Amino acid sequence: MRRKEARLTQGMLSEPTGSVTGAGALLSILRDGQARTRAELVQLTGLARSTVSQRLDALLSHQWIVPATDAISSGGRPATAFAFNQGARVVAAADLGATHARVAVTDLASNVLLERTADLPIDRGPEATLAWLVETLQGLLDETGGQLCGVGVGLPGPVEHSTGRPVNPPIMPGWDGFPVPEWLGQRLGAPVLVDNDVNIMALGEHWARSEVEHLVFVKIGTGIGCGIISERRLHRGAQGAAGDIGHIRVTSDREVVCRCGNTGCLEAVAGGASIAGQLTAAGVPAANSRDVVGLVRAGNTQAVQLIRQAGREVGDVLASIVNFFNPSVIVIGGDIAEAGEHVLAGVREVIYSRSLPLATQHLSIRATELGDRAGVIGAAVMVIEAVLAPEAVDLTVNS
Amino acid sequence: MRRKEARLTQGMLSEPTGSVTGAGALLSILRDGQARTRAELVQLTGLARSTVSQRLDALLSHQWIVPATDAISSGGRPATAFAFNQGARVVAAADLGATHARVAVTDLASNVLLERTADLPIDRGPEATLAWLVETLQGLLDETGGQLCGVGVGLPGPVEHSTGRPVNPPIMPGWDGFPVPEWLGQRLGAPVLVDNDVNIMALGEHWARSEVEHLVFVKIGTGIGCGIISERRLHRGAQGAAGDIGHIRVTSDREVVCRCGNTGCLEAVAGGASIAGQLTAAGVPAANSRDVVGLVRAGNTQAVQLIRQAGREVGDVLASIVNFFNPSVIVIGGDIAEAGEHVLAGVREVIYSRSLPLATQHLSIRATELGDRAGVIGAAVMVIEAVLAPEAVDLTVNS
Repeated sequence: MRRKEARLTQGMLSEPTGSVTGAGALLSILRDGQARTRAELVQLTGLARSTVSQRLDALLSHQWIVPATDAISSGGRPATAFAFNQGARVVAAADLGATHARVAVTDLASNVLLERTADLPIDRGPEATLAWLVETLQGLLDETGGQLCGVGVGLPGPVEHSTGRPVNPPIMPGWDGFPVPEWLGQRLGAPVLVDNDVNIMALGEHWARSEVEHLVFVKIGTGIGCGIISERRLHRGAQGAAGDIGHIRVTSDREVVCRCGNTGCLEAVAGGASIAGQLTAAGVPAANSRDVVGLVRAGNTQAVQLIRQAGREVGDVLASIVNFFNPSVIVIGGDIAEAGEHVLAGVREVIYSRSLPLATQHLSIRATELGDRAGVIGAAVMVIEAVLAPEAVDLTVNS
Repeated sequence: MRRKEARLTQGMLSEPTGSVTGAGALLSILRDGQARTRAELVQLTGLARSTVSQRLDALLSHQWIVPATDAISSGGRPATAFAFNQGARVVAAADLGATHARVAVTDLASNVLLERTADLPIDRGPEATLAWLVETLQGLLDETGGQLCGVGVGLPGPVEHSTGRPVNPPIMPGWDGFPVPEWLGQRLGAPVLVDNDVNIMALGEHWARSEVEHLVFVKIGTGIGCGIISERRLHRGAQGAAGDIGHIRVTSDREVVCRCGNTGCLEAVAGGASIAGQLTAAGVPAANSRDVVGLVRAGNTQAVQLIRQAGREVGDVLASIVNFFNPSVIVIGGDIAEAGEHVLAGVREVIYSRSLPLATQHLSIRATELGDRAGVIGAAVMVIEAVLAPEAVDLTVNS
């Protein structure tokens, strides 16, 4: 109560006024999909019967809930049971990568209603990129219909959580400090939440395994980063910089220069660009992560060896993280992870030999379940959790 | 609501029945120390006036709250404002180390009312150690008076969170699986919570800086471990094993054998036993951490150099943790940390040169504030948070 989180403030266009407080508590009970009667809700919340009725009316009038089917079928009389309406609103979600974009419209249960992918270089700058995003989302929303309740966007760089603005993003020229939530919010007419792509992928993968309490999602692509779930919630850290494991030093070899300016970083030995460079130097031309994965799939021995070694290097960093953080699941995703079991085998080999037995006893290390879709689903989850948070559901009276 | 935490189940002697649900919500509002009227509480909780009155009566009859002073002074009429009574109960807290113990009785604001320290080798086994603890606590409780609401205990080894039992603790022969909460609970007549010593020290240090969201407490003593606070809550990890950084590999030198059976562990190069061994080998006799600290304080150059290098080794591991976890505060404690600025200087030197600028920009790296008392204060905090958790305050009606 006293430490209200400012989760829906990025790009919020106006503060709600004349709200019916506490409607969110009812909604959070009904979100599990089970229909409940007025009496059950009175009992579950401890709220006065008149208060429950008033809030149910508000939720009904905003279509957040619907009379439950069995109540309707009892003919004519006022509904006595209510259920969450996952079709009440739609959510717009976007996962913008370095060179590709995936956008989707989902319902309030993160089910993808419609989606689109495109080649979209992020280095075209914010205005060109976001103008494309607005146009594409509007097209999708025209097709799906439904009232838009929020927009979630993942960007391939660090994002300040309180403002949703990119902070010195290395591969995004022109984006530093750009007010993404406000820019999109003004054009799409809904609150906008922005986070980095690895965080939203972690949210997506956790959504697919919601029983897990502590999860680490590792993206191995051109760069390497991770998203962290602690007690089912995203751990962003003090500056929103948590998970930046690509620049942990793994070798004291000062010839391994990283794009960050330091030497010996994990990304500089195990990232997609590094592996492509090592292959090219060995006479096997490869320009990027995708070429590397192609070579692995074609059975190129050098590529297989390098990618397994990359798995070991990532495993070396994760072995320490397992001791420190003790997750129950590690999910490996990203371009390079598409090379499949070779990366996973390297990661597992090192973690199981190096981490503490107590921490690895029940540890599961797996490939992504959602693949390319982890980002958009996670972006939708981020919006839905914010929109349906008990303290966020403030319904304007008489609207 | 739906995911009720089982925080007070370790050693809970019986389940409360006939409870007044929701009293905890009132109590959690009043815990900030500010007195509030009935009308304010109705407004803040959204509960019906009759419900608020019923719950206030229950809280008053159990002395969790008291009529506020200004209301009392208005003479004769029923009190209209209520405040949290931090003297309502007392808490028993114990920090059992490898060779020493500190026990205390506190009020509900973690203020130490009375404390005692003693030499107590944990390897005497659970029954002898805990019998001493019961006798000592009973002595302290006789002196302080007050109704005991819970007992918090820190142990120098891994503890399974759900049961409060030690799990293969390396320096605690005879303790593996011992039912500490039940054993103590039966003799002290109150719920007992047990955790490892580093976790409770982290809780204590966080209590001293409660505005901090993400904190890592590092104990450098005979062993090395850390306690992790994520979003103001202790992160214990999937098996309660989070924070075990002492066995992260920091050197590939296979001659550095660790007591865990692996080679190259942080503890084996930077722990107190290792430094004492290195000093002895160099002709400066030292048996343990205390001797090392004594030598540093006496200005022995070799000891100062070794302890600064130990700080660098710990800093090396923490530099990775800063990238991964992005804490805003790192607190260094434990025996070796008593050597003061030398350790801290080594830690800072490596973290600031190696971690990402975004993550170190506002990072504060400091020595413990509570020193030897971090453990008992943290043990009390653990109990108080569990006892006063809104879902835990179930008051038996008509008792």
